[in-house]
Amino acid sequence: MRAHAPLVHCITNSVVTNVTANVLLAAGASPAMVDTAEEAGVLAGVAGGLLVNLGTLTPVQIGGIDAAVGAAARAGVPWVLDPVAIGVLPVRTALAGELLGRRPAVVRGNASEIAALAGGAGGRGVDSLAAPDDVADIARDLARRHTTVVAVSGPRDLITDGDRVVRIAAGHSLMTRVTGVGCALGALVAACAAVEDDAVLAAAAATAWLCVAAEEAAAASSGPGTFAVALLDRLAAVDAGSVATRAGSA
Amino acid sequence: MRAHAPLVHCITNSVVTNVTANVLLAAGASPAMVDTAEEAGVLAGVAGGLLVNLGTLTPVQIGGIDAAVGAAARAGVPWVLDPVAIGVLPVRTALAGELLGRRPAVVRGNASEIAALAGGAGGRGVDSLAAPDDVADIARDLARRHTTVVAVSGPRDLITDGDRVVRIAAGHSLMTRVTGVGCALGALVAACAAVEDDAVLAAAAATAWLCVAAEEAAAASSGPGTFAVALLDRLAAVDAGSVATRAGSA
Amino acid sequence: MRAHAPLVHCITNSVVTNVTANVLLAAGASPAMVDTAEEAGVLAGVAGGLLVNLGTLTPVQIGGIDAAVGAAARAGVPWVLDPVAIGVLPVRTALAGELLGRRPAVVRGNASEIAALAGGAGGRGVDSLAAPDDVADIARDLARRHTTVVAVSGPRDLITDGDRVVRIAAGHSLMTRVTGVGCALGALVAACAAVEDDAVLAAAAATAWLCVAAEEAAAASSGPGTFAVALLDRLAAVDAGSVATRAGSA
Repeated sequence: MRAHAPLVHCITNSVVTNVTANVLLAAGASPAMVDTAEEAGVLAGVAGGLLVNLGTLTPVQIGGIDAAVGAAARAGVPWVLDPVAIGVLPVRTALAGELLGRRPAVVRGNASEIAALAGGAGGRGVDSLAAPDDVADIARDLARRHTTVVAVSGPRDLITDGDRVVRIAAGHSLMTRVTGVGCALGALVAACAAVEDDAVLAAAAATAWLCVAAEEAAAASSGPGTFAVALLDRLAAVDAGSVATRAGSA
Repeated sequence: MRAHAPLVHCITNSVVTNVTANVLLAAGASPAMVDTAEEAGVLAGVAGGLLVNLGTLTPVQIGGIDAAVGAAARAGVPWVLDPVAIGVLPVRTALAGELLGRRPAVVRGNASEIAALAGGAGGRGVDSLAAPDDVADIARDLARRHTTVVAVSGPRDLITDGDRVVRIAAGHSLMTRVTGVGCALGALVAACAAVEDDAVLAAAAATAWLCVAAEEAAAASSGPGTFAVALLDRLAAVDAGSVATRAGSA
Repeated sequence: MRAHAPLVHCITNSVVTNVTANVLLAAGASPAMVDTAEEAGVLAGVAGGLLVNLGTLTPVQIGGIDAAVGAAARAGVPWVLDPVAIGVLPVRTALAGELLGRRPAVVRGNASEIAALAGGAGGRGVDSLAAPDDVADIARDLARRHTTVVAVSGPRDLITDGDRVVRIAAGHSLMTRVTGVGCALGALVAACAAVEDDAVLAAAAATAWLCVAAEEAAAASSGPGTFAVALLDRLAAVDAGSVATRAGSA
């Protein structure tokens, strides 16, 4: 990652743009946020990876997403779909279903969002009321049907391409007390997919990296404010060896 | 609050989305930002509370606010109006006047904004040049005429339903050196209104909570950067007893 | 600056609104973000300075920029153009060229952006692949042709009105590991231009102030997270004397 410094094009929600950019910079990637159709189509074609996050979907973004996903497909750029808060909210739910058919490399969400994407009932927003393992079969089936990788975030993350299943039991509950950690994970998956062709490995590496950094940050924190700050420091400091060791022993 | 974890729908300005979400999470609430008419109308109807903040009003938000306020009214969801920087700026000033007639549970602003809402001269932006007590009569009259609660922020906060008047002399001047503290207070009022029917008490509890956390944060800070971080830590750590004791003795 | 507390109207990108507002507040200025044509035209006319940053340009902002720049010209308000990521992206590149003809007091960018503005090849986003001194002739020529001041950010900043050339060799590499530091510099230049008529001096003062604060912040940091926090603290704490001494000896 740090050797390649991949350009990651993010079409994401207005709550987390800043923390997403900072997570990518801390990880050694190069973030660029461009939402409009005229420019998103250009940028996605030259990016290393693309993130499509539906958290605060606007009419402008709907056009930008269409252009960016099209350009990514033509240029062979891997892209990540983060279907934030689908289920109850109609516009994004319909769009997420449509985007699922356009070959995302990875779909990242919490258990409620993955269930909603598969046609089940959604959650009440960005908070997930179910655990990743509760939707393991749904995730595997979804991945198989759409030839994608599904990454379900939670206390124990689950990543599957329908065949292989990777579980990562790292992280810390403070990750849910700061906005944007899950959304930033989606961006980090896109960054890892830019430098690693196997999307299961890319999603697992991003998840392990963020979770190990979060554990270290939590140990040095006295609340959500100091945790968010320490998370960026630790993301920048963590090396690949310690991620592998920790995530492997988890 | 922490037992209920109310869903707080925020239509707010682009400068403060992140800090607003983090303040709500630190307080134990569950934030969701949705601006578009199609989805805001759905979300507001299932939320515990709604915040309408006019800080960076867009055409998309104008439609979303109309839908959300309508849905909140139908579902009995309390909503908070934060008329940021009205007075000089024409679109938001007209909209704030119109929204005042749609029964917000609480109107939160600084003294300039409350004066402008009552038809007086506005300030020059988000900075208030007058103190809450300078507009005490205006606030009381406004609350009475529109059957709402008016919360005026400043060195000594004033909260009134036109009849009762609560003053809270807590907080710290660093609250004005970091963007979004006032806006986050509006969101915290909406969160408290979701779990407390008496809107005067809800506004007073939110104000006291934020101000006491700010005092503690300021004592541990060396400038606005560390203050903003410590504020989230303290919001998450402060318990109801210490808020009542401190605010009561202020 | 702190005596005048100038109102700085920012039309800027969605990634950096928060950090931009906090940098301005830490410096003692008063930020206000307004994007729409109806309100931006009003605000720019009463502001002390205006920033136009093209980082996440939207159709709404295009209208707001036109209105704000027009109002600033009529009222004699100095404005700063920050042509973020021009070169590859078509809409902003065309707009930046057009805006250059409308008399910005200062154009601030990295070397790639300044080269692209002069008609050369652009970079791949907000990261600059060239150093300020690589575009010294281009910057001087651009400033002379358009009667403006060009400020090129990099390891050694270069500021020129086509005649005078100021170089500032301060700062720290962590400034590039946190999003929005360059964008916030543009806003700080607008704030300094509000209180100092000589735009070369205004740009140099803003650059020196931010760079010296960054050096102090880096010395107290353990990574990009703590750096971003300490930067706000140091901006608020640094006094004019220490900036002059440090920048002068650099």
